[in-house]
Amino acid sequence: MEKNTLWSGGRLSAALNQSMADLNRSLDIDKRMADQDIRGSQAWAKATCAAGILTEEEYQMIHTGLEQVRQEIADGSFVYQETDEDIHTAVERRLTEIIGPVGGKLHTGRSRNDQVVTDFRMWMMDTIPELEAQLRELQQSFIERAKKDIDVYVSGYTHFQQAQPILLSHWWMSHFWALDRDRQRLSEAAQHADSLPLGCGALAGTAYAVDRFDIAETLGFSIPAPNSLDAVSDRDFACDFLYWAAMLGMHLSRCAEAMILYSTMEFGYITLSDAFSTGSSLMPQKKNPDSLELIRGKAGMQSGHLFSLLSSLKGLPSAYDKDLQEDKQLVFAAADTASLVMSVMKGVLDTLTVNKERCLAAINTQALATDLADYLVKKGMPFREAHHAVGKAVKLSETMKCDLKEIPLDKWKGISELFDEDVYKTFSIESAVDARCAWGGTARFRVLEQIRFAEKVLANS
Amino acid sequence: MEKNTLWSGGRLSAALNQSMADLNRSLDIDKRMADQDIRGSQAWAKATCAAGILTEEEYQMIHTGLEQVRQEIADGSFVYQETDEDIHTAVERRLTEIIGPVGGKLHTGRSRNDQVVTDFRMWMMDTIPELEAQLRELQQSFIERAKKDIDVYVSGYTHFQQAQPILLSHWWMSHFWALDRDRQRLSEAAQHADSLPLGCGALAGTAYAVDRFDIAETLGFSIPAPNSLDAVSDRDFACDFLYWAAMLGMHLSRCAEAMILYSTMEFGYITLSDAFSTGSSLMPQKKNPDSLELIRGKAGMQSGHLFSLLSSLKGLPSAYDKDLQEDKQLVFAAADTASLVMSVMKGVLDTLTVNKERCLAAINTQALATDLADYLVKKGMPFREAHHAVGKAVKLSETMKCDLKEIPLDKWKGISELFDEDVYKTFSIESAVDARCAWGGTARFRVLEQIRFAEKVLANS
Amino acid sequence: MEKNTLWSGGRLSAALNQSMADLNRSLDIDKRMADQDIRGSQAWAKATCAAGILTEEEYQMIHTGLEQVRQEIADGSFVYQETDEDIHTAVERRLTEIIGPVGGKLHTGRSRNDQVVTDFRMWMMDTIPELEAQLRELQQSFIERAKKDIDVYVSGYTHFQQAQPILLSHWWMSHFWALDRDRQRLSEAAQHADSLPLGCGALAGTAYAVDRFDIAETLGFSIPAPNSLDAVSDRDFACDFLYWAAMLGMHLSRCAEAMILYSTMEFGYITLSDAFSTGSSLMPQKKNPDSLELIRGKAGMQSGHLFSLLSSLKGLPSAYDKDLQEDKQLVFAAADTASLVMSVMKGVLDTLTVNKERCLAAINTQALATDLADYLVKKGMPFREAHHAVGKAVKLSETMKCDLKEIPLDKWKGISELFDEDVYKTFSIESAVDARCAWGGTARFRVLEQIRFAEKVLANS
Amino acid sequence: MEKNTLWSGGRLSAALNQSMADLNRSLDIDKRMADQDIRGSQAWAKATCAAGILTEEEYQMIHTGLEQVRQEIADGSFVYQETDEDIHTAVERRLTEIIGPVGGKLHTGRSRNDQVVTDFRMWMMDTIPELEAQLRELQQSFIERAKKDIDVYVSGYTHFQQAQPILLSHWWMSHFWALDRDRQRLSEAAQHADSLPLGCGALAGTAYAVDRFDIAETLGFSIPAPNSLDAVSDRDFACDFLYWAAMLGMHLSRCAEAMILYSTMEFGYITLSDAFSTGSSLMPQKKNPDSLELIRGKAGMQSGHLFSLLSSLKGLPSAYDKDLQEDKQLVFAAADTASLVMSVMKGVLDTLTVNKERCLAAINTQALATDLADYLVKKGMPFREAHHAVGKAVKLSETMKCDLKEIPLDKWKGISELFDEDVYKTFSIESAVDARCAWGGTARFRVLEQIRFAEKVLANS
Repeated sequence: MEKNTLWSGGRLSAALNQSMADLNRSLDIDKRMADQDIRGSQAWAKATCAAGILTEEEYQMIHTGLEQVRQEIADGSFVYQETDEDIHTAVERRLTEIIGPVGGKLHTGRSRNDQVVTDFRMWMMDTIPELEAQLRELQQSFIERAKKDIDVYVSGYTHFQQAQPILLSHWWMSHFWALDRDRQRLSEAAQHADSLPLGCGALAGTAYAVDRFDIAETLGFSIPAPNSLDAVSDRDFACDFLYWAAMLGMHLSRCAEAMILYSTMEFGYITLSDAFSTGSSLMPQKKNPDSLELIRGKAGMQSGHLFSLLSSLKGLPSAYDKDLQEDKQLVFAAADTASLVMSVMKGVLDTLTVNKERCLAAINTQALATDLADYLVKKGMPFREAHHAVGKAVKLSETMKCDLKEIPLDKWKGISELFDEDVYKTFSIESAVDARCAWGGTARFRVLEQIRFAEKVLANS
Repeated sequence: MEKNTLWSGGRLSAALNQSMADLNRSLDIDKRMADQDIRGSQAWAKATCAAGILTEEEYQMIHTGLEQVRQEIADGSFVYQETDEDIHTAVERRLTEIIGPVGGKLHTGRSRNDQVVTDFRMWMMDTIPELEAQLRELQQSFIERAKKDIDVYVSGYTHFQQAQPILLSHWWMSHFWALDRDRQRLSEAAQHADSLPLGCGALAGTAYAVDRFDIAETLGFSIPAPNSLDAVSDRDFACDFLYWAAMLGMHLSRCAEAMILYSTMEFGYITLSDAFSTGSSLMPQKKNPDSLELIRGKAGMQSGHLFSLLSSLKGLPSAYDKDLQEDKQLVFAAADTASLVMSVMKGVLDTLTVNKERCLAAINTQALATDLADYLVKKGMPFREAHHAVGKAVKLSETMKCDLKEIPLDKWKGISELFDEDVYKTFSIESAVDARCAWGGTARFRVLEQIRFAEKVLANS
Repeated sequence: MEKNTLWSGGRLSAALNQSMADLNRSLDIDKRMADQDIRGSQAWAKATCAAGILTEEEYQMIHTGLEQVRQEIADGSFVYQETDEDIHTAVERRLTEIIGPVGGKLHTGRSRNDQVVTDFRMWMMDTIPELEAQLRELQQSFIERAKKDIDVYVSGYTHFQQAQPILLSHWWMSHFWALDRDRQRLSEAAQHADSLPLGCGALAGTAYAVDRFDIAETLGFSIPAPNSLDAVSDRDFACDFLYWAAMLGMHLSRCAEAMILYSTMEFGYITLSDAFSTGSSLMPQKKNPDSLELIRGKAGMQSGHLFSLLSSLKGLPSAYDKDLQEDKQLVFAAADTASLVMSVMKGVLDTLTVNKERCLAAINTQALATDLADYLVKKGMPFREAHHAVGKAVKLSETMKCDLKEIPLDKWKGISELFDEDVYKTFSIESAVDARCAWGGTARFRVLEQIRFAEKVLANS
Repeated sequence: MEKNTLWSGGRLSAALNQSMADLNRSLDIDKRMADQDIRGSQAWAKATCAAGILTEEEYQMIHTGLEQVRQEIADGSFVYQETDEDIHTAVERRLTEIIGPVGGKLHTGRSRNDQVVTDFRMWMMDTIPELEAQLRELQQSFIERAKKDIDVYVSGYTHFQQAQPILLSHWWMSHFWALDRDRQRLSEAAQHADSLPLGCGALAGTAYAVDRFDIAETLGFSIPAPNSLDAVSDRDFACDFLYWAAMLGMHLSRCAEAMILYSTMEFGYITLSDAFSTGSSLMPQKKNPDSLELIRGKAGMQSGHLFSLLSSLKGLPSAYDKDLQEDKQLVFAAADTASLVMSVMKGVLDTLTVNKERCLAAINTQALATDLADYLVKKGMPFREAHHAVGKAVKLSETMKCDLKEIPLDKWKGISELFDEDVYKTFSIESAVDARCAWGGTARFRVLEQIRFAEKVLANS
């Protein structure tokens, strides 16, 4: 392939090998940052004009030429060429076609090293608010479910064995909080992206007296990066973003896993909408929770993205190494995947049906064993003894093949004299739920309070 | 193995299989949280006393008994038993030996699910400040090097090819900023750990009216977790910590990689102290930078820790699953490794020798090519043309097998008429460094300013 | 720390920094290879004797001295010293204490670089047969279950939705084959380990005319490594082993996941033995499948081990870099974990109870929908139409809130005229199972055939 | 989105949500398997015809129709529709358009579950030989370099410090062997892919008496999979392939890292062709080894692919879960990347220039220290003492700031009386290289022998 790049025509002579050109070319990926690249170049032109490098006229030519490039890209008339190795080359090449040799002044004192990572940070700062809004909507869907399902009693699980009855709303809200941490992490990622590399040159800084604080302000950054070597080399913000995406993926995977199980015939707690289910090419009866399985599967992909970048960064010695080029495809893939899975999860939540009676009916009386122990504790038995006593009752019920509440009183008394007629009052799912009354518990008034608190958190952040 | 655990003696009958006991037992790992476990239990006893579950007398017995347990562990007289499956079991078992059946009242309304994760969060909140202090000291060592080496000119690299000359101090400072982001991330990890699970029971909340805000205050947490299901299940804080450790490892690996190269005979920029070098069992001349290689190698381990946990968490459906047990060994390993590599890196920095003359002598004149282009730009040539013109000069010098500054004037003029006698003044390393004068650049006054800024940042955070 | 190592006393002067010594020291990990180290040294002494470097008498002294070292390690009387940085140093140090300066001749022409990796490969070749035996026993347990449960009909699942009825034996056997691939992979890992590095020196080969083919034979290797640089640097065999362990972990994790679900109250297909279950510290009724959850959780750890090593190896430039030191702790951890989870999984299988009636009763008639389509196909309807027709029947049964087999004939005919009285004969689980009669299907005779085939495979490999 | 899929029109009513359709659709990825899908369908039609399900006429119609589909895809006239969720749907949809309702008979007794994974395995079995050929060519390039550079002496490194001189050919060959293990691993991956899933239905086997051994033969598989549940669920072959790609990536990354360093100005051992180098947009002198850096960076991506899949597979409970859909994009990406980096690495090798004089001149006399120790050993000193003695000499030379060979004889004697005039003969790089004469060493005759052996290995496998 012929070299018609920002760096050819001088020192390097031979044409680039075709496989090498294929490996090197990043245009298909980084053209997504066209808008950021143009804004960044306009800001650079403005700064170099202020520093006396461009005349006011040259600056205007460049600015207007870049506007035309933006327009051509927006309306699809922009023609990428085989020799455009990346979006930065494409934009400068086209600019020079439009405005002539003065286009060659744009890159004065700038390097692709600071240019690329500026574009990339801008893209991230542009994109995070959209993802944040989606995350917020998804959290809102969990709140809506919690409000709607406040009368649904369901088994709570540990080790995926029935543990204690809870309100389904309490379960929905547990996912709200996991997502709220993701939102916090996303906001931290946004802050970590907010440092301007432009004006750091290739690595050592720029030899032109541009005001980097001004450029930062123009482009919406809080501060210019304080060390030029670090600025062109640092990809922490990309890692932070990928880590966010991996954590979000993991949270949604956990939620999806539970919902997959809850939608089985054996559990039957929820029914997915057909709009989020698919069938089988062979088995006519099938209605499969593909939406949730794909959400779960994508979590593995998101972890992989993070580890790809961590592995690539490890051991890189110098300010800029070409290995860094992999960063963008990972981040773009992670962003698209995160957006898609949030959207699908929201759709699943908004359209599913809760089978209230089934949820209640499935709660086994054994899930009230803790309440039986509490019953003994209230009568003065140390908890550890009460735990053992109730364990014996559970074992007895299994031996007798009966429900706990069917054990006759004399058998209860055989286990402990503290048991009395009132033991049968313990077998109320509603009471068991309302008993968990400390802050954060599943008691109805606590869950309602929690929903209000969550709404406040969402409104205030 | 006989079951003599918190949960045996009631429902479950058979003894535990030996392999299963080996797989299940976590004592060797979690006994590191003994102190946190005791403080957590004391706070719980206080809270249940305030809620009327324990009498004041019982509370005092438990509190004092736990103090004795703490003392026994501290002085090494505590005897762990084969049946102590974890530190929580060991502490309660010993407490009950000391104070009798009233010890069995401690666990009222509490579960190991909320207990374990409370201990773990406390451990993290106790440990992070120590790691933060180490990180700060390591940053200080980079500042000290930057101050000491302010007169050292060295080649800056991109793609590990000589790019432009810089001050070595500027290079040292680039690592300061990477670590400063690690410090920021560590501080965020600390905030994410700061939410109290105690009082959430097994999953549904506790059935005793304890004041979780009070417990939080007692144990130094800002808030009690707002959802009991989430509280026993959430291991985000562990992931955040592992992510921090992976990022720190990656940063130190990059720095180590460069220093390994700088300490080769071929570069010769720095000489490690013998105290951080080892030799060869076979080759008598060898002095190897094992310290730095191990720092680099450990970065792979730290990434692995994060991946292990992310992979284990993915797809877990319910509030608490036993898979979560793996979290602690990963976090403890990551903390120990982070501490050790920071300590070794600091030692390496504090004791190495910089070979100032060698650093300067190794700078090739080609590294001033950008300054030549800037020279043409200042005479009015668009940068892109200037870049090509200088590229030709570089090629010419290679053909002539001479240094750039040995090219005679007529040859320069053959490339561009803008070249004149003053072109030879361009070949000053000192000027080239001082020319990078925008904020964040390698110009001496900027680096000195940067050091002062860094000191301020360190002092104010 | 004072340096009293294989390499101190000559060029390097200062004592080693304590943190550095901690980071560098690998004795706690590599002492596990003491036996291999001694055998390797004996073989080396024999080879150097044959090459005329040691006299016969010297060789005998060294051989006998090493036997004593082996004895001391075996009986626990060996005293490791603070300055023994690894097992190789410890053995040579002790040997020299026992036999005097002639001990210093052992290391002639050898380097720790070839020594360490020889020991490591020997350890692996010693260990793999033990793991292979365990894997084989575990496969045998799956066969035993398949034989025992041949009369158990159970729902088969795709997307974890009921799909078609199968024999439980068929399900057990599906795990047999996954493990058989693991056994294949383990055997390949063993072959990959089988290449002798000894005699490659530090990197360039040894300057003494030892016969490496002889050494290989002595130590049980098929061939000596053909390139000395590669031999000291290659850790592929460690990766292969870790990959094996990760795959095994993944397979057992999948099996464990299903069994966790099958042992819930909602499914109730199997009941774990108490010997592989644990309880709750709070909830007296709980019987948790911790064994299976830990097996599942460990899979994440095993993947992490592989990733750690791959990440550490990536980008290492030279023959031997100290980063390689991390290899052993990863491999040892993976081997121990693999052994433990295989043992626990075998125990779980051997002791669980299958609830045959429950398995059968849980099969929903909808799982026979494919058989209904096949019914239509046999009457000449193209399959794709048959699929749609039966889909309508399923939908009808849901609207009518009845079982498929309760749909009256006129309704069937309303869907397709091809339906007739004999449609009701389709609703036989036994027939549906036996209909899957192609090789590899769930028909009883095929499963019995499969079991015999599996036994043959196991016997012949 | 409207549902016009293999499974719609029967049970499931609502249209599919658009986000869900986007997440679910795999056509853009799996259309790469169009050819395999058609061949697989033709084989299935043949088998069902032989089993009496299709008439001969129907079979011919289907076969011919599929040929037409193949032709349309080949010539680009095939029009994919929005509702084609995957290639399998597209092919059957188009077939039915062409041949009418009889197209609906093709899928009789088959499921996409066995169809997809059959296509995927066929794709892999088709692709591996191409990759194997590329790998072989790359190995050949290493051999060519080894032959060409047989007279080049260069420093060998451990810990990236000069260790002992070697032949550059020996270094090239070290990479040959790493790649030979990759070739072995690829061949194992091919064997692991070679098991036919077709005829396993959705999970339980097929209800039609097809001869799966015949189908296997038709499609080039050695055996039909022995367990239908395992067959539709097993993705080990995909993991094996990704593991191969990760290992290859790691090996090339190590080689690339070294070559990046060898091409620095400081080392100067090799010069890359301009065809595999790129320049800087800012610095006119730059010639960067981007080819090698991208090879190194891609290694991180390849590891990430493996871990994505391992993480997705972990914990999947049932025969087929939709999470498995991610497998293909990972494998395709890994295959494309592997092919590209092999091609670029081969190009780099074939076109680079070795700077023979520079390689030789850079060898420091200290790299002969082992030979000095061997000198003493040959005079009877135990190696360990000789090591210390030479270490002192090295230290002395550093104190005297002279080369080792400049140390006067009396100083040598001061270290050991065994030193004599002939010590100065030790300082021959050629002798030092030829001294490493055991099999696998760097002695010239051994390297030549090694090259011949390598050629034989390549020819015979």
